[in-house]
Amino acid sequence: MKTPEEYVESLKRLNPTVYIRGKLVNSVPDEPLLRPGINAISLTYDYALRTEYKDIMIATSHITGKEVNRLLHINTNRDDLLKKLEMTRLLCRTTGCAQRYLTHDALNAIYETTDRIDEEFKTEYHLRFLDYLEYVQNEDLTACVAMTDAKGNRSKRPHEQQDPDLYLRIVEKQEQGIVLRGVKAIVTGAPYTHEIIVLPTRAMTENDKEYAVSFAVPIDAKGIEMVSRQAGRPEDSGAELTSRYGQATAMILFDDVFVPWERVFLAGEWQFAGSLTEAFATHHRLSCIGCRAGLGDMLIGASSLMAEANGLDPMKVGHIREKISELIKFTESFYACGVASSVFGKETPAGNFSPEPVYANIGKLLQGLHIYDMFKIAHETSGGILVTSPYPEDMQVPSVKDRLSRYLKGREDIPADHRLKIARLLEDITASYQGGWYSVISIHGGGSPEAERMEIMRKYDLDERKSLVEKITGIRQIP
Amino acid sequence: MKTPEEYVESLKRLNPTVYIRGKLVNSVPDEPLLRPGINAISLTYDYALRTEYKDIMIATSHITGKEVNRLLHINTNRDDLLKKLEMTRLLCRTTGCAQRYLTHDALNAIYETTDRIDEEFKTEYHLRFLDYLEYVQNEDLTACVAMTDAKGNRSKRPHEQQDPDLYLRIVEKQEQGIVLRGVKAIVTGAPYTHEIIVLPTRAMTENDKEYAVSFAVPIDAKGIEMVSRQAGRPEDSGAELTSRYGQATAMILFDDVFVPWERVFLAGEWQFAGSLTEAFATHHRLSCIGCRAGLGDMLIGASSLMAEANGLDPMKVGHIREKISELIKFTESFYACGVASSVFGKETPAGNFSPEPVYANIGKLLQGLHIYDMFKIAHETSGGILVTSPYPEDMQVPSVKDRLSRYLKGREDIPADHRLKIARLLEDITASYQGGWYSVISIHGGGSPEAERMEIMRKYDLDERKSLVEKITGIRQIP
Amino acid sequence: MKTPEEYVESLKRLNPTVYIRGKLVNSVPDEPLLRPGINAISLTYDYALRTEYKDIMIATSHITGKEVNRLLHINTNRDDLLKKLEMTRLLCRTTGCAQRYLTHDALNAIYETTDRIDEEFKTEYHLRFLDYLEYVQNEDLTACVAMTDAKGNRSKRPHEQQDPDLYLRIVEKQEQGIVLRGVKAIVTGAPYTHEIIVLPTRAMTENDKEYAVSFAVPIDAKGIEMVSRQAGRPEDSGAELTSRYGQATAMILFDDVFVPWERVFLAGEWQFAGSLTEAFATHHRLSCIGCRAGLGDMLIGASSLMAEANGLDPMKVGHIREKISELIKFTESFYACGVASSVFGKETPAGNFSPEPVYANIGKLLQGLHIYDMFKIAHETSGGILVTSPYPEDMQVPSVKDRLSRYLKGREDIPADHRLKIARLLEDITASYQGGWYSVISIHGGGSPEAERMEIMRKYDLDERKSLVEKITGIRQIP
Amino acid sequence: MKTPEEYVESLKRLNPTVYIRGKLVNSVPDEPLLRPGINAISLTYDYALRTEYKDIMIATSHITGKEVNRLLHINTNRDDLLKKLEMTRLLCRTTGCAQRYLTHDALNAIYETTDRIDEEFKTEYHLRFLDYLEYVQNEDLTACVAMTDAKGNRSKRPHEQQDPDLYLRIVEKQEQGIVLRGVKAIVTGAPYTHEIIVLPTRAMTENDKEYAVSFAVPIDAKGIEMVSRQAGRPEDSGAELTSRYGQATAMILFDDVFVPWERVFLAGEWQFAGSLTEAFATHHRLSCIGCRAGLGDMLIGASSLMAEANGLDPMKVGHIREKISELIKFTESFYACGVASSVFGKETPAGNFSPEPVYANIGKLLQGLHIYDMFKIAHETSGGILVTSPYPEDMQVPSVKDRLSRYLKGREDIPADHRLKIARLLEDITASYQGGWYSVISIHGGGSPEAERMEIMRKYDLDERKSLVEKITGIRQIP
Repeated sequence: MKTPEEYVESLKRLNPTVYIRGKLVNSVPDEPLLRPGINAISLTYDYALRTEYKDIMIATSHITGKEVNRLLHINTNRDDLLKKLEMTRLLCRTTGCAQRYLTHDALNAIYETTDRIDEEFKTEYHLRFLDYLEYVQNEDLTACVAMTDAKGNRSKRPHEQQDPDLYLRIVEKQEQGIVLRGVKAIVTGAPYTHEIIVLPTRAMTENDKEYAVSFAVPIDAKGIEMVSRQAGRPEDSGAELTSRYGQATAMILFDDVFVPWERVFLAGEWQFAGSLTEAFATHHRLSCIGCRAGLGDMLIGASSLMAEANGLDPMKVGHIREKISELIKFTESFYACGVASSVFGKETPAGNFSPEPVYANIGKLLQGLHIYDMFKIAHETSGGILVTSPYPEDMQVPSVKDRLSRYLKGREDIPADHRLKIARLLEDITASYQGGWYSVISIHGGGSPEAERMEIMRKYDLDERKSLVEKITGIRQIP
Repeated sequence: MKTPEEYVESLKRLNPTVYIRGKLVNSVPDEPLLRPGINAISLTYDYALRTEYKDIMIATSHITGKEVNRLLHINTNRDDLLKKLEMTRLLCRTTGCAQRYLTHDALNAIYETTDRIDEEFKTEYHLRFLDYLEYVQNEDLTACVAMTDAKGNRSKRPHEQQDPDLYLRIVEKQEQGIVLRGVKAIVTGAPYTHEIIVLPTRAMTENDKEYAVSFAVPIDAKGIEMVSRQAGRPEDSGAELTSRYGQATAMILFDDVFVPWERVFLAGEWQFAGSLTEAFATHHRLSCIGCRAGLGDMLIGASSLMAEANGLDPMKVGHIREKISELIKFTESFYACGVASSVFGKETPAGNFSPEPVYANIGKLLQGLHIYDMFKIAHETSGGILVTSPYPEDMQVPSVKDRLSRYLKGREDIPADHRLKIARLLEDITASYQGGWYSVISIHGGGSPEAERMEIMRKYDLDERKSLVEKITGIRQIP
Repeated sequence: MKTPEEYVESLKRLNPTVYIRGKLVNSVPDEPLLRPGINAISLTYDYALRTEYKDIMIATSHITGKEVNRLLHINTNRDDLLKKLEMTRLLCRTTGCAQRYLTHDALNAIYETTDRIDEEFKTEYHLRFLDYLEYVQNEDLTACVAMTDAKGNRSKRPHEQQDPDLYLRIVEKQEQGIVLRGVKAIVTGAPYTHEIIVLPTRAMTENDKEYAVSFAVPIDAKGIEMVSRQAGRPEDSGAELTSRYGQATAMILFDDVFVPWERVFLAGEWQFAGSLTEAFATHHRLSCIGCRAGLGDMLIGASSLMAEANGLDPMKVGHIREKISELIKFTESFYACGVASSVFGKETPAGNFSPEPVYANIGKLLQGLHIYDMFKIAHETSGGILVTSPYPEDMQVPSVKDRLSRYLKGREDIPADHRLKIARLLEDITASYQGGWYSVISIHGGGSPEAERMEIMRKYDLDERKSLVEKITGIRQIP
Repeated sequence: MKTPEEYVESLKRLNPTVYIRGKLVNSVPDEPLLRPGINAISLTYDYALRTEYKDIMIATSHITGKEVNRLLHINTNRDDLLKKLEMTRLLCRTTGCAQRYLTHDALNAIYETTDRIDEEFKTEYHLRFLDYLEYVQNEDLTACVAMTDAKGNRSKRPHEQQDPDLYLRIVEKQEQGIVLRGVKAIVTGAPYTHEIIVLPTRAMTENDKEYAVSFAVPIDAKGIEMVSRQAGRPEDSGAELTSRYGQATAMILFDDVFVPWERVFLAGEWQFAGSLTEAFATHHRLSCIGCRAGLGDMLIGASSLMAEANGLDPMKVGHIREKISELIKFTESFYACGVASSVFGKETPAGNFSPEPVYANIGKLLQGLHIYDMFKIAHETSGGILVTSPYPEDMQVPSVKDRLSRYLKGREDIPADHRLKIARLLEDITASYQGGWYSVISIHGGGSPEAERMEIMRKYDLDERKSLVEKITGIRQIP
């Protein structure tokens, strides 16, 4: 397995085309605007080497028998699901979002879906994928997941769009591979990964056939260009967390990109576009739950420390206690859905384990809806200082710095500087660009609430509950 | 194990003093106002004998090695906790509330707490209790749990009350046993059980010593009188569920009741009053979660059937779909907390397993708070017919019955009678006295939201989250 | 104006066909099951004669210049709207729901809509209606409003239903009048009113023409039969409020009922069915707001008294204070929407004033959604006693009554009997059949939340807000 | 009245000491980091000169009889209150927050409170204040309001703090005036106003006497230094609103600042510190309601346009329609509380009109709590593009710009650029630093939810509701 340094080193050997703020990036690992993103992924390499996290970060590959980073592991039992959940919480409570679990979720989704496609169409996607999987595990790579298409007019299907390239599509099938054109619109962490794994973004009809495509491609393959946002707030003094750890999202443009067949996992079998989307979503929603529970941990800790720094004991002051208990309630109730989803996970015909989908969707739905309530509570318990504290530079102005320190003290035995750092952390994660990002990504990343509600209804055994009521009332309703 | 008939028979051999609506009950098993309660408990005997429920309803006693009803079982591993949770859901989705899980929760709480008391004070409560436990298991009994004291002025402790008997207390310790006086104010199912298990209702101080008491006593012991509410709505035509299944609560008056030492499990060790209360609450809150999930199942099923009967397909009509998915979200998210509480349950020094308390409390808190939202959704999806449908008797009036049947039809292929029955079931469980009872009991039974929030704060590892934030910000805050 | 006694007397001169619980009612004013409903309407006659309520209860008819009960008044300015709002709060805070405001809302709706129909079709509905209005005002009558049709399959329009009579319809137009067949499914207060005012329940298409009908008919006209629910809980001891005041709803069957033209206000002009429905809804939603604010007043008062009786001062105990303040927040925020709706009310071409519809709909929506939160708070602040207190009959049992009184005391200086009465009132209005009725009627009476959301969207000036944003961003979006 | 240009010009004649980001500001009107704040206040001068806003922006001074900007007007009737409310909505829907209403609220609060102090203590504060008021009106000035003290340990009163200067205090009373030391921690708009009006931040006890102080002082008085945050996001391309309009908050340090008696409005009369705080809060909470309704207008408009640009018609797509109607519900329901507060406003003994406090507090509470729900809805309806759209600079990169424009189009007839601008506006106001600021300031600006709940309980006529219930139940509870 790679060390964090080797991961960064390996990025230097790649040469992706990345634009940020109108400029072409010379070297991704040297670009300050991307550094927080690289740091966040580095942590996934770092923790895997630490003995205290071995149980949670390391798994034994069921294809090679070697130890691999759990983020590249195919879940082979329910305990793997539970550990994946715990791992994402562990990684994200330090980084805000460790991003690399996307690789895990895509690998598992392709693993189980290619098996189904081969079963149905006698294709060989699954075998090809096993080779790719082994490569990724052996090289200890990170792949970004390119799923979200541009989508154009949301009320139309891919083939109905005026512009045919608004969903990424196969423009040509060749003997050696396929040629792709179009765009993937929101790809987390893209610039500082090794590989792009492409997945379809929705269920398709026969007319959408050319859009039913999945494959993997190196980040610097010919014809690929990215337009990226910065990761975190590297230029903002006072960004307590996100000057160090952050997440970039990029648009990836595909300009007639060639992908050889051995890296293609779906190419026209439109019947399975939805299955693959859904398989990924199910794995990924469990990851989102763990990730946001990590953010919840930060909010719980910071709100408690802030209340203390203000002189209000969270265990004793009634309204503070109630609010902190609400933060815990929100965080642990969506996390509990992740636990139930793991515990009731199911083996697929391919032999891997997939989270129970109803609980995965409910947990994801809850974290998306309640992140706003959690921010509200963090703000309510902390006070206006969150967005009004002096900038770090002001605390250095000789003529005022002593008075600022005096006046910004809350509880007598806690230095003003501590109080400010907690306030700035809370501002950083709830009331800055990054705070906005966390909330939007909580609600839309991994699927919108509307998508989750649909999925809940599709997967829940409503008939069983209807039968129960029919039994109680002695009726037999026509379905 | 007893058959349902043997359970009813056994009640005939007891002779408790019970008043309902101002009258003394001659024979509990023959009292129509209590019949729905007896039926609900009968089901726990019935299901235990059915092969399809064996795995969930039957356990092997760790003290006798015999098969026992799981409701009388001491949990010996995490799987027992999970099965207990599933069992309560199973029993309550048919009866509304099966009540007998209270016996289970009290047995487990006394089991683990007497062990702690003996360890601390070299007493012999635990051994005594084991005998009692064996008796209860062998006879396949049902015990009600008498916990809630009258409490008087809620801003005062037991010993501070003007009237010394507002919390049940030991008025005399004799060589053979103790003498009790006072009242337990809200005892579910009391009239139709075999035994009363008494538990303290809160933590005590040294001054409250005489109130720190726990014991078991037969329901018809000398000096015990009960004033009971009716169980369900046995006299209401149209009570689709609760004319058959219901729950009574009773006040139990203790008028210098003698209890021999072998049935006493706490008598003055005030240091453990809170522990015992809390141990019971932890087990019981898990039961409440399962129970209310069963009610949730009914609401989900009935709301779906009602929408269909109205001609609105719950999978296709957007606003109905959204609401049913909300019902599922509420039900399964608090149930997931029960699952997490079971999965993370812990072994006590006594060797039994206790639910993880934070998740148990969050799950209980959620079901209490959201029962109201669930009723709202059931009402919103179903329409005004819930409280305006003609009475069953009206459907028999010759001059109008045909027209009523014509006009009360919704979807063409569903008989009006089916639609009415579902409407009446929903009225019964959400908009009748019993519906009110479910909501109040959801919020207060097993502890109020305030109590649960306190417990969440006491049990959550807040320090760990504070350390996390101290690490992120590089500060070290004084505690 | 009539005295309450004259109102009851006048009911005796009518002879409607009413069934309750399978029996034909001999005399409505003598039927115990309807008495609480009669009492509630009596109060509207009573208060109109009291000098302290003159300003709010009495208005000067703009057609006759005589003083009339405001409940029969056509609003001629904004102040009339505000006073109507205040009047409904006043009447409903004592009775739970005074019902007779429905008459007011229907009169106003027909007043303004007939004027529009005549303008469009050169008909004479408005003039006819003025005569009817004068008659109602002079005789000081009460009319029930029959609006809600049976509706059958909710996904189909009236003319699409398999059974043509699922919406009330004109089966024949004769020279002297029209003949009606079908049913109105939920008519509040019907048995104990003088007149039935029929309104269409929705917008219609040309094919639904025969269903576009509005008229007034005496309650005992030939061919009319009613199947009624009881009003309140007249037979329940312990029904603190609703043994005295209640509301019945009835299904009204129309079996080829003849109505002369002078009492017909719409007969086939389908273009105005929606307008009339909507006009009524707008007036009525304002009434619902006032009515539920009255229920809110009871809940606020009773929850505060209950907390006190429990020994918890609502001003000092943090979590109680927070909850009572939430009750106030809910009640007064939807009431404020009623105030805004009144203050921004608009004059119609007919010259009367109609509430501003967006605020009326938002207020109605809020009261329907939040009634459940309000019940939750009432339960949370009061405790389990709400559904577990001994029945009044038990408090009379000689052998236990003294102990019950001792044990049911909370704060030392408040008699147990007071505490019980407040608990029973809260049970009565939140946790009994009547409590269920209040919640369902709050959400569905006067239109469902879904209907209100549609209306909000139709009436809100969304374009104005879009223009604002176009101005800010400098774009001009194509509509 | 000043033109916007004259307002900016007038700032040049002042010379305040202001630090931002560690640097001393040379000239406030030339400082780019403050420009958006200046622009927002300029708009209040601009609109006052426009004929279309005359009715709402201009009032006739009751002291001079001259026309004045309504923001400097003393409310002399209820209509003034309603117009003030409408004015804040108008100004803030364009600027996000126009800030200058703070001047209005402070002037009104001091007006009515000095009258009470003089009445009680025979002082002359009111007369002095009238002179100051005339000066402010005649010069058409803007004053910032310095209220929030540093507060130190929140569980202690001013005089109990270890450091005596954590609340601003009078260190010396001299013949000509008073000398002040300490800090005001959060002062909105401070650097670009003419005057500082100081108010106490809470009720005081006799021991806190020296902290009971109110006065006005020019912004560049000797001994005053400010540490300010930037206003808006002037340096961020893509800040659609806040590169132009924004708000700065500053800490103001008072280093033995002398204030002559004619500008002192409270100096030691601790009995009135709370009254003055509360009087300001009442006026100001009404302003907050209007201000946030303006933000609501932007959110409603932008969310609707965004949905359209995505190809989803807000009137037709069910879940979008529901969400937009929720945005309207939140915005207009708190605004309705502002309307009710105005309509039920009361005349003070000084002759001005003050908003009805219960409605003002409920409205303010609602906008603070629901701003988070509103952001959630804006995010939910708009999609991930809010935080992932390419930067404006990227849209200029020659090699990719055409493809970006193609791919970022939603509905075919709406240019990508329009869609991006709306997305960026929503990011700007909900998911950037400024979005965080809006949410925190909504919840804490003008008082925390906790403070508002306390005030609601203090001002609500709870006794009246208790009497109602006593009447219904026939009890008479001891208070």
